[in-house]
Amino acid sequence: MFLAQVHVTYKPSILDPQAEAIKNAMHRLEFNQVTAVQQGKYFEITLDVPTVQQAEKQIDAICDQLLANPNMETYRYQVKELANQ
Amino acid sequence: MFLAQVHVTYKPSILDPQAEAIKNAMHRLEFNQVTAVQQGKYFEITLDVPTVQQAEKQIDAICDQLLANPNMETYRYQVKELANQ
Repeated sequence: MFLAQVHVTYKPSILDPQAEAIKNAMHRLEFNQVTAVQQGKYFEITLDVPTVQQAEKQIDAICDQLLANPNMETYRYQVKELANQ
Repeated sequence: MFLAQVHVTYKPSILDPQAEAIKNAMHRLEFNQVTAVQQGKYFEITLDVPTVQQAEKQIDAICDQLLANPNMETYRYQVKELANQ
């Protein structure tokens, strides 16, 4: 069993008005030391596969086909082996 | 300058229909080895403060006041020092 921790974020070239709105809200709450905000999606996916290579191959395919919009978003992930229960 | 990487996820006791829908979509795409999915929000916040303690204090306050709904969500974060530019 493997756990993949996946982060999907906008590409740097894509304008992110939601992150700007969050930064403005922080400044309204007087957190003026905040200089930049980026936001994205986070997924934890548990896979019942025998090897880390198979887990990584599946996660790549899942991100490409489902979780990330390849036009606007990039993804990165880490795969950890889970202790047998 | 410090970078905080913040994850906001539902508490384990909260039902997450969106994560269930994502898992069902993975199964429809024949990723049948996926046994569990959790989803949440991810933020990268850059803070211009002199010490890591101040960065952590601000991030705690920002999460409590803005990013996480304390009734349903929990948050965790890591703070890293950024190299001077």
